[in-house]
Amino acid sequence: MTIITLTTDFGIRSGFAGVMKGAIYNIAPQVKIVDISHAIAAQDIHEGAYALARAVPFFPQGTIHIYVVDPGVGTKRRPLAARLGEYYFVGPDNGLLTPLIEDAEQNKQPVEFFHLDNPTYWLPKISRTFHGRDIFAPVAAHLANGVALSKLGTPFNDPVRLKLTRPEKTDRGWIAHITVIDTFGNLTTDLPASALQGRTDILFRLRGAEVAGIAESYGHNRSGDLVAVVDSEEYMEIAVVNGSAAEKLGAKVGDAVEVINKD
Amino acid sequence: MTIITLTTDFGIRSGFAGVMKGAIYNIAPQVKIVDISHAIAAQDIHEGAYALARAVPFFPQGTIHIYVVDPGVGTKRRPLAARLGEYYFVGPDNGLLTPLIEDAEQNKQPVEFFHLDNPTYWLPKISRTFHGRDIFAPVAAHLANGVALSKLGTPFNDPVRLKLTRPEKTDRGWIAHITVIDTFGNLTTDLPASALQGRTDILFRLRGAEVAGIAESYGHNRSGDLVAVVDSEEYMEIAVVNGSAAEKLGAKVGDAVEVINKD
Amino acid sequence: MTIITLTTDFGIRSGFAGVMKGAIYNIAPQVKIVDISHAIAAQDIHEGAYALARAVPFFPQGTIHIYVVDPGVGTKRRPLAARLGEYYFVGPDNGLLTPLIEDAEQNKQPVEFFHLDNPTYWLPKISRTFHGRDIFAPVAAHLANGVALSKLGTPFNDPVRLKLTRPEKTDRGWIAHITVIDTFGNLTTDLPASALQGRTDILFRLRGAEVAGIAESYGHNRSGDLVAVVDSEEYMEIAVVNGSAAEKLGAKVGDAVEVINKD
Repeated sequence: MTIITLTTDFGIRSGFAGVMKGAIYNIAPQVKIVDISHAIAAQDIHEGAYALARAVPFFPQGTIHIYVVDPGVGTKRRPLAARLGEYYFVGPDNGLLTPLIEDAEQNKQPVEFFHLDNPTYWLPKISRTFHGRDIFAPVAAHLANGVALSKLGTPFNDPVRLKLTRPEKTDRGWIAHITVIDTFGNLTTDLPASALQGRTDILFRLRGAEVAGIAESYGHNRSGDLVAVVDSEEYMEIAVVNGSAAEKLGAKVGDAVEVINKD
Repeated sequence: MTIITLTTDFGIRSGFAGVMKGAIYNIAPQVKIVDISHAIAAQDIHEGAYALARAVPFFPQGTIHIYVVDPGVGTKRRPLAARLGEYYFVGPDNGLLTPLIEDAEQNKQPVEFFHLDNPTYWLPKISRTFHGRDIFAPVAAHLANGVALSKLGTPFNDPVRLKLTRPEKTDRGWIAHITVIDTFGNLTTDLPASALQGRTDILFRLRGAEVAGIAESYGHNRSGDLVAVVDSEEYMEIAVVNGSAAEKLGAKVGDAVEVINKD
Repeated sequence: MTIITLTTDFGIRSGFAGVMKGAIYNIAPQVKIVDISHAIAAQDIHEGAYALARAVPFFPQGTIHIYVVDPGVGTKRRPLAARLGEYYFVGPDNGLLTPLIEDAEQNKQPVEFFHLDNPTYWLPKISRTFHGRDIFAPVAAHLANGVALSKLGTPFNDPVRLKLTRPEKTDRGWIAHITVIDTFGNLTTDLPASALQGRTDILFRLRGAEVAGIAESYGHNRSGDLVAVVDSEEYMEIAVVNGSAAEKLGAKVGDAVEVINKD
């Protein structure tokens, strides 16, 4: 049994995600399909990159992840299939896989890319605007049926990469950056909790606000308090207890967060 | 293995779609269930009709499609099961199937309608406001289990039909109409690309704006450009590159689009 | 084949629900997963309680329901697994199960609670903010694989309970309360239709508006009419035909509805 996941910016109204599932089951009726998100901000490759990267490690080995955040559909941007470690990916070559590629490279796991240029594994008729249905869904389904990556297209090794923010070391601590704003308005940063080496006497500054110390969890403070916590992927996060830090601070992805060791 | 799909205007908050899935699995635990959309505009049979019609051809033969956009629930409107070509449908007799009925008739495929008047295949207790759960879900599940359409109710041949717009031929080209506005704000029209017979020197006029020519895809223009493209179902579409044509033009379903041959 | 359902306040953008499904399939690839809702209002245990309670009776016996509306995550609030009648539940001990516990007690069905304090059945690494993924998903998956409730943790019998509104008897009828506002803006109350003993000459008063009589269904009146109907769970509901009663009246959950017998 293989799982195929979907991460798109289609929204939930159109039925486009459902159509992709029809196209998948037509070829591979035995798979299970899991929606990761269809509400990635329209054409926001950056948001899609983090949403997919956070989800992947919790899926069984061999899972095939389709992603369709695809502002370049219909241009010469390459459609690709990739193997990164024990996972497979199908989507446009537009940088969305960057955090996963970097992880696989750091962990010395297998990294392979194939330009999907073999129409044998596509729908018979290819539209100019919906490659999710016409190319990515059938290719993922054939992959689930055991077709080798190398049959789907031509290997390449220069995938498009996003330039991701990295925390910068300063005299007094770090400059971190907001990477993800979740549906509760919590602000995840690019600073791993491990960078603080167990210190909790830390001051966080962003958008004119200050947060002192690291809370054990949201629930240990009063409603409305601005707190810093370690998030579910072990990165530093700024949150408002029972509220939205994004709204309270007017924060955006990419904003700098000054992190100051007080001792 | 049979697929049952769901197309409703329930929204995503209520849990009504989940309840229907419970009712289906209670009777037919072996099926796969696919959401097409639960965000059809409330009671908008027209939007539901196009969303379902666009999705159906991509599903395996034998798929059973449930639709519940049902402003007449609790009145004498008939609940129906239908066969159109190689697909099955269960929902209220309110016109939502019109594009699919017309397609099947044009292609001389089997077309059959049954008034669901046999309570044997319903839940034991029928509410006045939620036939999706009490009638349509169990009927579709029994159909998936192999119960014949003719056992579910009485045949009839006068289903309610919507009056759909059709493009009108003019001296200089066509008057087309907007049929669907998708989640990106792209405006699909009722004019098939084939009507333009390969001409690209075309002028499109709608709501005071003009678009000259047909773009190969969204990605070949600059962000913010208003373009005409061939959409994923081979109909003419007006779009804004990396933006929303619906918002830019204040366009609505039904709006006329003047299509002018310049040569 | 076991069904696992999910009821959360995660929203649809983040991918958190998809991550939980990955964690479930990793342990129990044979289950079917059904979304009840991921759009419960943030941290609204009350809304979650009614959404889950309305859905449960329509699922097959043995279904495992996970709920994650969890403002206390990371504090000492207990994670629990419960058996109520023929259903299983996994989530935080915060009162969300109250209507289901009361139903099971009234019907003298089995009622058992276990404090999830055995990390054997959790993910190897537990975050402070995402117990849905780290504890509830794997526990539900092990339960689906046949692990006994008693292996998952320590029994207890004092679950947190919400104080739910109850209709109050008056000289002239009842004071009812709004319990649920659905996506159409219909207002469900806590007054069972059976309390009116078949009378239809009833006057409903709420927020300065009056509704006389009980309509057979939405469809029997004119668009925009304010009506009282019996809802799909046999409770009295105030609705606007083809519109939103919540919007028209500015009504909120908890608002009183005066119910007056006119005869």
